[in-house]
Amino acid sequence: MRIAIDAMGGDNAPDEIISGALESIELLNEHDELILVGPKERIEAQLPSPESHKDIINVVDAPEIIGMDEPPIESLRKKRKSSIAVMAKMAKRHETDAVISAGNTGACVAAFQMRMRNLAGVNRPGIAVVFPTFEGPVTICDVGANIACKPINLYQYGAMARMYSRHLLGIKNPRVGLMSIGQEDAKGNEVVKKARELLKSDSNMNFVGNIEGRDIFKGVCDVAVCEGFVGNVILKLTEGVVDGLFKAIKHELMAEKLRLATKFRPVMKRIYTKYDYNTYGGALLLGVNGTALICHGASRSRTIKNAILASKKYHTEKINEKIIEYLSGTCVRTSDEQAD
Amino acid sequence: MRIAIDAMGGDNAPDEIISGALESIELLNEHDELILVGPKERIEAQLPSPESHKDIINVVDAPEIIGMDEPPIESLRKKRKSSIAVMAKMAKRHETDAVISAGNTGACVAAFQMRMRNLAGVNRPGIAVVFPTFEGPVTICDVGANIACKPINLYQYGAMARMYSRHLLGIKNPRVGLMSIGQEDAKGNEVVKKARELLKSDSNMNFVGNIEGRDIFKGVCDVAVCEGFVGNVILKLTEGVVDGLFKAIKHELMAEKLRLATKFRPVMKRIYTKYDYNTYGGALLLGVNGTALICHGASRSRTIKNAILASKKYHTEKINEKIIEYLSGTCVRTSDEQAD
Repeated sequence: MRIAIDAMGGDNAPDEIISGALESIELLNEHDELILVGPKERIEAQLPSPESHKDIINVVDAPEIIGMDEPPIESLRKKRKSSIAVMAKMAKRHETDAVISAGNTGACVAAFQMRMRNLAGVNRPGIAVVFPTFEGPVTICDVGANIACKPINLYQYGAMARMYSRHLLGIKNPRVGLMSIGQEDAKGNEVVKKARELLKSDSNMNFVGNIEGRDIFKGVCDVAVCEGFVGNVILKLTEGVVDGLFKAIKHELMAEKLRLATKFRPVMKRIYTKYDYNTYGGALLLGVNGTALICHGASRSRTIKNAILASKKYHTEKINEKIIEYLSGTCVRTSDEQAD
Repeated sequence: MRIAIDAMGGDNAPDEIISGALESIELLNEHDELILVGPKERIEAQLPSPESHKDIINVVDAPEIIGMDEPPIESLRKKRKSSIAVMAKMAKRHETDAVISAGNTGACVAAFQMRMRNLAGVNRPGIAVVFPTFEGPVTICDVGANIACKPINLYQYGAMARMYSRHLLGIKNPRVGLMSIGQEDAKGNEVVKKARELLKSDSNMNFVGNIEGRDIFKGVCDVAVCEGFVGNVILKLTEGVVDGLFKAIKHELMAEKLRLATKFRPVMKRIYTKYDYNTYGGALLLGVNGTALICHGASRSRTIKNAILASKKYHTEKINEKIIEYLSGTCVRTSDEQAD
C-alpha cells in the first residue's frame, strides 16, 4: 500500500512528521511505501541513511508550503506546488492509496474533496473524528467539511461513520444518534427533523434517535451525526472544557497542598493517555474516493505513526467498498430537491 | 417587586422550590412579594405558619401541571390552568414583575414569549446562560429559544447579553465574540458571516470577532453569541464533558489508592462550588417585556433563591430599559428581508 504524508503539515513539521513516518516502518510490510511530500532537499537532509528505510520511504518534491492560517481556497489556487496540492493530485492520479496531513485543515478538505471525487452514492464527504469517552469511543461526523447540510448528507454520515466504527474500531453493531436539542421527535430544526425520518426509515442503521450534547459522554451511542458547524463547535468546545477543567483542578490542588498536586499528576497523565485523540491518528474524510486522514495541527510523531496505521487498516478493511455496497442497497434515495 | 415562582416546576418541585422561596425572604424587603403559583391547597399545606412569611409570600392557584417531558405547545394548549400558563398570563396582565420556573423549558419559552411580547426593538428573544469559567463568567446567548436565527437576531443577542453581562455580572466593558468554526472573516455559514458584519459595524459593541468552541474557556470574551441550536448543544455538551471527566478521574483515583481519592474529594467539591451554574439562578429569557428566568430542571432551593435574587437585580438595574435605549440608538437596523 502506498501512503503519502504531508511532511510540511502542522505546527511540528517537518521533524515530528518525519519521525512518525520512521517510527511506523517496523509495523509495515515490504509491500508498503511511505511517500513524504514536501521540499525534497530539506526532507532528504533529515532522513537517516537510505539503508535504514530502504524501499519503504520515498520523497516527492513539493517546494511550496501552505501556512496553517492561510485562507484555504486562495492558497490552493496560488500554491499549486504545495505539499497539500501535490498530494491531492497524486491521489487523483492513483499514484497513492492514502493521503495524510496535519496541515491547514480547510485546504486539505478542499483539495482532497476536489481532486479525489466522491464515492459512488455519496453526495457530500464528511469529516469523522473519534472521541475517546469513559464509556467507549464515539465517532462524530461531520466536524467541519459541510456547513450547509441537507438531510441526505446527515443520513449518509450515519451510514459511513457506522462502517468506520464497525470495521476500524471493532464495534459490532454501532448505535447511531442524531445530534439535536431534545430527545423528542419534534425537537430540532427542519434539516434535523427530515434527517431523523431518513435514519429511522433504514432498519439496518441501528438508529437510537435524537441525542443531546451531554449524551456523547453517556454511552448511549457509538456514532453521533451532526452538521459540520455544530460538529466543529463540539470538537473544539470539548477540547476547551477539558483544558479549562484541568487548569482549575491544578489551581485548586496547588492552593491545597503541593504534595497532593504531585500525587495527582500521574493520575492526570494516565487520563490524558487513556482519552488521547492521538490514539486514532486523526480525522477521516469519509466519502471521498480514497483514504484521506487529516491530523490535528499539534500532531506529534506518535499521532502520525497512528495515522499511518489507521489509513492502512481503513484501506485493508476495504471500508470504502463497504460504504458503496451499503448505500447502493439502502432504500433511502436522493430525491431531486435533496440532491446536492 | 412582585416575583411569581412556578411551585410545580422541576424535578424537585414543590419541596425545593418552596424552600428556596422561604430562604430568599431574609434578603428581600417589605415591598417585595413572592407569588407561588401551583395547586393552592398543596402549596399552603407545605408553607410554615403564615406569621413567618407574612405579607411576603402569596399563593395563586394553578391546579394543572405540565410534566418535564410533555410536548410544550400541545400541553400549553390543553392545560390552561397549569402553573406555567397561569404565570405567563399574570406577566401579560402586569400582575407580576418577574416569572421564574424550573419546569418544562420549551413550555416556559413558548408561554413567556407569546404572552409577554417582545421589548421595543427586539425581533426575537434569546435565552442567556452564564458559564462560570476559570477565566471568569461568560454569558452565552442564545441557548435554545431560536433555532432559525437571522443575522439581526444574533446582533441583538450580542447587544442584550452585553447589557446583562455589564449590569448583572458587573463586567465594565464586556467583549462580544461570535461563535464560528474559525477566527478568520471568511469562516462560518451565511448567517454567521452576515451577523459578523452587523456586529462589526457597531462601534459600541466591543466586538472581538469570531470565536471557536474552545475560546469560551480561554478568557477571550465575556459574551458569546450563537444561534439556539448550537448554543443548546454547547450548554449540554459542557455538562456532559465535565461529568464524564470527573467520572474518569474518580475511576483512576480509585484504581490508584482509595486514600488519594478521599483527599481529592474536597478539591472536587470546591471546584463544583466555584464553577456552579446554580450561582446564577438560571437562564434569562432576554428580549421579552418583563423579567423571565428559566432554571435547570434539577434546581435545588439554593438555585431558586439565587434566581429570585437575580430577577430582583435584573429588574432593579432596569436592564430592559437599557436594552431598549441601546437598540433605539444603534445604527444597525432591520431591513425588510432581515425582519422576523
